[in-house]
Amino acid sequence: MPERPVRLALTIGDPGGVGPELAAAILGDGREDAVFCVIGSTAALDRALPGSSRGRLPVVTAEEWAADFAAPGRPAIVDTAGLLDPPPGRPSREGGLVAGRAIETAVRLAESGAVEGIVTGPISKEGLSLAGYPWRGHTDMLAGLLDAPDCQMVMVSGPLRIVILTRDIPLADVPALITPERIATGVRVTAAALTGLWGIEEPRIAVSALNPHAGDGGLNGREEIDVIAPALEALVAEGFRVGGPIPADTLFYRWEEKGWDACIALYHDQGMIPFKMKGFSNGVNMTIGLPTVRTSVCHGTAYDIAGRGEADPGSMRAAVGLAVECCRVRRRRGDAS
Amino acid sequence: MPERPVRLALTIGDPGGVGPELAAAILGDGREDAVFCVIGSTAALDRALPGSSRGRLPVVTAEEWAADFAAPGRPAIVDTAGLLDPPPGRPSREGGLVAGRAIETAVRLAESGAVEGIVTGPISKEGLSLAGYPWRGHTDMLAGLLDAPDCQMVMVSGPLRIVILTRDIPLADVPALITPERIATGVRVTAAALTGLWGIEEPRIAVSALNPHAGDGGLNGREEIDVIAPALEALVAEGFRVGGPIPADTLFYRWEEKGWDACIALYHDQGMIPFKMKGFSNGVNMTIGLPTVRTSVCHGTAYDIAGRGEADPGSMRAAVGLAVECCRVRRRRGDAS
Repeated sequence: MPERPVRLALTIGDPGGVGPELAAAILGDGREDAVFCVIGSTAALDRALPGSSRGRLPVVTAEEWAADFAAPGRPAIVDTAGLLDPPPGRPSREGGLVAGRAIETAVRLAESGAVEGIVTGPISKEGLSLAGYPWRGHTDMLAGLLDAPDCQMVMVSGPLRIVILTRDIPLADVPALITPERIATGVRVTAAALTGLWGIEEPRIAVSALNPHAGDGGLNGREEIDVIAPALEALVAEGFRVGGPIPADTLFYRWEEKGWDACIALYHDQGMIPFKMKGFSNGVNMTIGLPTVRTSVCHGTAYDIAGRGEADPGSMRAAVGLAVECCRVRRRRGDAS
Repeated sequence: MPERPVRLALTIGDPGGVGPELAAAILGDGREDAVFCVIGSTAALDRALPGSSRGRLPVVTAEEWAADFAAPGRPAIVDTAGLLDPPPGRPSREGGLVAGRAIETAVRLAESGAVEGIVTGPISKEGLSLAGYPWRGHTDMLAGLLDAPDCQMVMVSGPLRIVILTRDIPLADVPALITPERIATGVRVTAAALTGLWGIEEPRIAVSALNPHAGDGGLNGREEIDVIAPALEALVAEGFRVGGPIPADTLFYRWEEKGWDACIALYHDQGMIPFKMKGFSNGVNMTIGLPTVRTSVCHGTAYDIAGRGEADPGSMRAAVGLAVECCRVRRRRGDAS
C-alpha cells in the first residue's frame, strides 16, 4: 500500500511576483505523494493556471480545510487576498498583506496538525515591511510566530546543507555575534534536524572558521582560538560529531570528498557564495528547529519576469520534494502525526 | 621566426616543501617558450630531479647569469642555500632563509632586466618569519622589496581573475579598510594590469559588495551607500568601466554570463571561496602593480606530501604559462625589454 500523501501548506508568496506561476507548476505536476492546502491570492493563482485547471480546487477557509479536507487528503485553496488587488511586478502593501496572511494561516494549520509541513513561495521583504509586519523575512517571521528563536536557516541542494548562523546583518556586526552559545545552538539544532528530518544517525557537522586560514594561529584574528575551538571542544565532549573551525575557502571546494552531513557557515556570504555556485537552480531554503517542517524556494519574487511564464520552478519543486521527504522521516520516527 | 624565449626567474620556494619537485617538473617539461634562472637550494633540486637531468644546468651566481646566460637564453641555477641544510617536511629558519634569499635574488634580477618575470614556488610564512624576515608572505615581501605598496594579489584561473583587496587580516578589521582610496587603487592597478599584462583594452571590472545583498538599501550595512558606490561613481566619471557593488553571492555564480575581465573581492574568503571552487588545481596566485611580472603557485608547501612525488605541478605549470603570456604582452606593448 502506498504511503498516504503528505499534507502540505503551500503559500503562493507575493502575488505580484513569480509565486503564483510556481504554485501553478506544482499543482500541474499532479504529485501523488502530497496534498496541498494552497494559501494566498486565488485571483493571482487563477491568472497563472492554464485554462480551467483551478476549477477543480475548491476555495475554502482554513478551518474548513482542517475539518473536511486534510484527513481525506483533498486539495483546496485558502484565499488570503479578499478584496485586495495587489499590483503585479512590484512590492506593495497589499502584496505584503496577502503574503503575510498566508504565512500566518500556514502556521496556524501546522500548529493544529492540519498540515505536516509548510512550503513557501517567494515574498518581498519590502512588501512585508510596507504591510506593517515587523519581520525581515520568512525565517524571522516563522521564528516569531512559532516562538522558535533558535531556529536556523539552512540552504539545501542534494547532499549540500549549509546553515547560515548569522543572517541579513552588516558584515561588521558578525564577529561579535559569533559566541559559544550561538555556535552551540547552531550545532544542536542542526544535529537534531539531520536526525529528525533526514534520518541521519550520528550526523557529522563541519563548522567554518571566521578569519582567513582559520586565523592562522592567531595572526589573522583570535576568534578561532578564543571562541570557536573551545565551543566545538565542549560540543565534542557532549558527544556531537563536529569538526572545525575549518578555513572557509577549504571547506567548500572539498565538500564532496569530506562527506560532512552539514556545515555551519558563520555569515551570509560565506555560506551563500558556495551555495549559489554549487546548487542554486535546484536549491531549497529551509528552516530547521521549528515544530513543523518548512521549506522554501531559494530565490526571490523575480518581479522582472513575473507573469511571463519564464520562471524556473526547479527550486519550488525541490522545496516540495524535500518537504515530503522530511515529513515522511518524521512520520517514521513518530515525531509528527 | 619563433619569438625568443621569455627569461624567467623560477624560485624553488621552501626546500622542505614540494617546491623542488615542482621546479623539477617544470624543467622536465623542456619548454621552448621560456628560459629559466632557477633560484634556491641546488641540493633540494638535485634530490627532486630524476637521474642526472640536473647535470645539464650549470650552477652560477646571479651576476654570472645576468652577464653570460640571460641574453643567449641559457638556463642555469643560482644557489641560495650554501651550507644551509634545511630539514625536509617542516618549516624552519634555514628553509626560510634559503627561500627568502631566492626571492631577493629574483627581485634583483628583475630590477636589472636580467629576467622579464618571476615565478615563485611555495614558501612557508612561518619559515620566513623564523628567518627574521618582516613580511607575512610573498606579496608583502615583493611589495616591500620593489617599493610597490599599491600592488595587488590576484587569483587567476583561465578567464577568472579575482583581486583580493584586503588580504590576511582578521575579518573584523575588514570593514574599516574598505575606503574610497583603497577601492580606487584596486581598480586602477587592476585596469592597468588587464591592459598591460593581458592586452585587454577598456577592461570591465566588477567590484563586490561588503554586506549581504549589497547592504539591501542600508538595512544590512551602509558601506555600499556611503563608501563603495560613491568610489565607483568617481571611477566611472574618470572613464573606468567598473560595475558594482555587486552582491558577492550573485557575482561569482553568474561569472561566465556576465563577461567581466576581473573582479575585486573585498576580503580573503570572499574571493578565495569562489576561486578554489572554480579553478584551484590550475590556478595561479599573481601580483599585479609591480614593475615586473610575477606569478606563483596558488597552494602552499604541502609539507605532508613533500618528496613523495605526489605533488600536482598543475598550478606551477599554469604560473609559468601565465608569466610567459604576460611577458609577451609586455614586449609587444613595449613596456619591458
